[in-house]
Amino acid sequence: MVRGRISRLSVHDLRFPTSLEGHGSDAMVGANASGLIDARHTDPDYSAAYVVLETDAEDGLKGCGLTFTLGKGTEVVVCAVNALAPHLLNKDLGDIVGDFRGFYRQLTSDGQLRWIGPEKGAVHLATAAVLNAVWDLWAKQEGKPLWKLLVDMDPRMLLSCIDFRYITDVLTEEEAYEILQKGQVGKKEREEQMQTQGYPAYTTSCAWLGYTDTRLTQLCSEALKDGWTRFKVKVGADLQDDIRRCRLIRNVIGPEKTLMMDANQRWDVPEAVEWMAKLAEFKPLWIEEPTCPDDILGHAAISKCHNRVIFKQLLQAKALQFLQIDSCRLGSVNENLSVLLMAKKFGVPVCPHAGGVGLCELVQHLIIFDFISVSASLKDRMCEYVDHLHEHFKYPVVIRKACYMPPKDAGYSTEMKEESVRQHQYPDGEVWKELLAAQGN
Amino acid sequence: MVRGRISRLSVHDLRFPTSLEGHGSDAMVGANASGLIDARHTDPDYSAAYVVLETDAEDGLKGCGLTFTLGKGTEVVVCAVNALAPHLLNKDLGDIVGDFRGFYRQLTSDGQLRWIGPEKGAVHLATAAVLNAVWDLWAKQEGKPLWKLLVDMDPRMLLSCIDFRYITDVLTEEEAYEILQKGQVGKKEREEQMQTQGYPAYTTSCAWLGYTDTRLTQLCSEALKDGWTRFKVKVGADLQDDIRRCRLIRNVIGPEKTLMMDANQRWDVPEAVEWMAKLAEFKPLWIEEPTCPDDILGHAAISKCHNRVIFKQLLQAKALQFLQIDSCRLGSVNENLSVLLMAKKFGVPVCPHAGGVGLCELVQHLIIFDFISVSASLKDRMCEYVDHLHEHFKYPVVIRKACYMPPKDAGYSTEMKEESVRQHQYPDGEVWKELLAAQGN
Repeated sequence: MVRGRISRLSVHDLRFPTSLEGHGSDAMVGANASGLIDARHTDPDYSAAYVVLETDAEDGLKGCGLTFTLGKGTEVVVCAVNALAPHLLNKDLGDIVGDFRGFYRQLTSDGQLRWIGPEKGAVHLATAAVLNAVWDLWAKQEGKPLWKLLVDMDPRMLLSCIDFRYITDVLTEEEAYEILQKGQVGKKEREEQMQTQGYPAYTTSCAWLGYTDTRLTQLCSEALKDGWTRFKVKVGADLQDDIRRCRLIRNVIGPEKTLMMDANQRWDVPEAVEWMAKLAEFKPLWIEEPTCPDDILGHAAISKCHNRVIFKQLLQAKALQFLQIDSCRLGSVNENLSVLLMAKKFGVPVCPHAGGVGLCELVQHLIIFDFISVSASLKDRMCEYVDHLHEHFKYPVVIRKACYMPPKDAGYSTEMKEESVRQHQYPDGEVWKELLAAQGN
Repeated sequence: MVRGRISRLSVHDLRFPTSLEGHGSDAMVGANASGLIDARHTDPDYSAAYVVLETDAEDGLKGCGLTFTLGKGTEVVVCAVNALAPHLLNKDLGDIVGDFRGFYRQLTSDGQLRWIGPEKGAVHLATAAVLNAVWDLWAKQEGKPLWKLLVDMDPRMLLSCIDFRYITDVLTEEEAYEILQKGQVGKKEREEQMQTQGYPAYTTSCAWLGYTDTRLTQLCSEALKDGWTRFKVKVGADLQDDIRRCRLIRNVIGPEKTLMMDANQRWDVPEAVEWMAKLAEFKPLWIEEPTCPDDILGHAAISKCHNRVIFKQLLQAKALQFLQIDSCRLGSVNENLSVLLMAKKFGVPVCPHAGGVGLCELVQHLIIFDFISVSASLKDRMCEYVDHLHEHFKYPVVIRKACYMPPKDAGYSTEMKEESVRQHQYPDGEVWKELLAAQGN
């Protein structure tokens, strides 16, 4: 079914001026170029390095992929995408997905780019953007949404997409095969369950640090009315502030609803222990990223990580009670598959990170596949949801009764509206031209 | 003493066609854009993102800094340097070094760049290049080589350059102060010892994977004659090959000399154990990077890491018997200071990584400072030496009887010859114009 030779790769620096609204503000200490250090992310302009692949197949299908970035970080990732481009150009799509493990290894082992990674930072984000586009194209050619492509795929073929390098000490290909074989039982029923009920979500849209108490109260009340029962609040900038805001939220949502907290790497280990003791009365289900994401021995309860090797160790060290995959920080579907399989082996529930630009659109495919074919369980599981920027996507997420409904359109839901792409290009898109002119630049 | 406002930051993409000679070939599986995967780094063109800072001080002094890269990886790092530049421009050097911890935090916390790090990958390499230039400028203005600037610096001032974030669970500022205070005893004698005898080195120049057996034998014999007693060999591509090459080297250098092995992240954990059992008869002192550098629980004997948090855990987990700092992979002098102090606390000898472009020139300052002011010991300690590309530096390393002799010139030995910079700019320098023309590009 797969067809065509990749004839063009273009990459766009897309930025959304979200910082103007206080969306995305969290406790990460941010510094801007004028040296102002604030206890919040002050200019988190949500952005994407957006990749479009074209082929000579004459079917009009394009593969769209992205990775989530912030502001000027995008230009570095765009540069890395361009450095990876020669690996794709003039390559047959069939050859790529026919030996996807080999192709993944080729990208992550580029002799000149590996030094500035490996499998981390700008280069790994670029790998994700490029491979997300390949998966989108593949799924479109097969005429299926990505989750369905994965669910229907022969287990051996699926495993041939995964690079097991550096994880064979905890998961071999044979073990992974057994997991997928067991996942065949009851698959049809679970697929139907997804189609009717969707995958449970939680919302982070109500409680950014930059929101006023009034806004926070209002957003929580509205979310309750819409059926949300699980909420995440950003903490870590100021303790008294956190106590006040958590109390406020608990007052609105009541003692029974689920509350999670996210400190966005704000603390040292001793500080995290002390701070969290003070917030314990608000009964958080988890504390996300209390400290540096590289700190495996620092015992994060839940953590976003940059590759499968870090996840492997967090599982080995029993440092995770929940595991947060990310569709754009890990090396696309390929690397996420390996993490889903390891999580299954260790019995740790996966609760994906989402939000940003497109992260919800992408990650829903992975978690729906996980439920149908791997974990077969919804116990302690939910997928993050943030209500931003969906309007720019051609196939935006559909949330019903606080659940992600399985996408029906072919592809990885990565494609953005042409108009949105044009307007948000930095610095020449209309949106930025106006903003920069207003700032006198 | 510190003076001037930073009036200009320029960054150059410098590449040296070292791959033509087989220098720098190691076991990392390299892939090039035509998809050829080879069990060796096949196109390791040693490169540097080279930063030059100018001030308005009218003393003619420039701060030069670099980070080591490979080929096209350089353009991504150059892009990241440009993204960091606004943090430095129009800033007083006095304000920067007067609150160097704050400035380090400002750079590594940039709200828009942190997402594509943090403190890892292209952005962290760019931080290193930029801050190396600041240290060079500072040392030049003080009229001292960098190691001497550090040795003479008041301990409190020195600590004010270190960001203790994420490491206070193993090293507090007070503990670090006590270490430095103890290091004052016998300092003068150790400085004299360095001046007369230098810091012991080992050579990696004899045994790259790409060298023929004849060349390997010849280089080892010559090195012995020059007084070298410690050798490192690259392994990990092919077991029978490794056995043959190690036997060859042992035959030349004899059973008493020291031999180290470097697998450059080639193996999975079980593979490493098996492979090394086969090489044990050649009595390696250490095995460097047997597996993924992110794999703290994978028990590397010695490892190059990308930040202080990874080093912290390797020390906590007792996974390191030797510790390898790198002047350009960590966040400049600032972050290396924190790692030297942690190594002292844990009693682990530091044996720096060097080679590449300029790594020997830079790291000698750090290890000489370490001996005089921190570790006060040479036991099990030595600094890597690779005999490449020193001719491009204005103040190249001086090796005498297999020891690094303390630099005498003011600065961080980072400054390159103008001619070398001009010729090796990519792609417009003379060297590349000719090479690319010869390749018909």
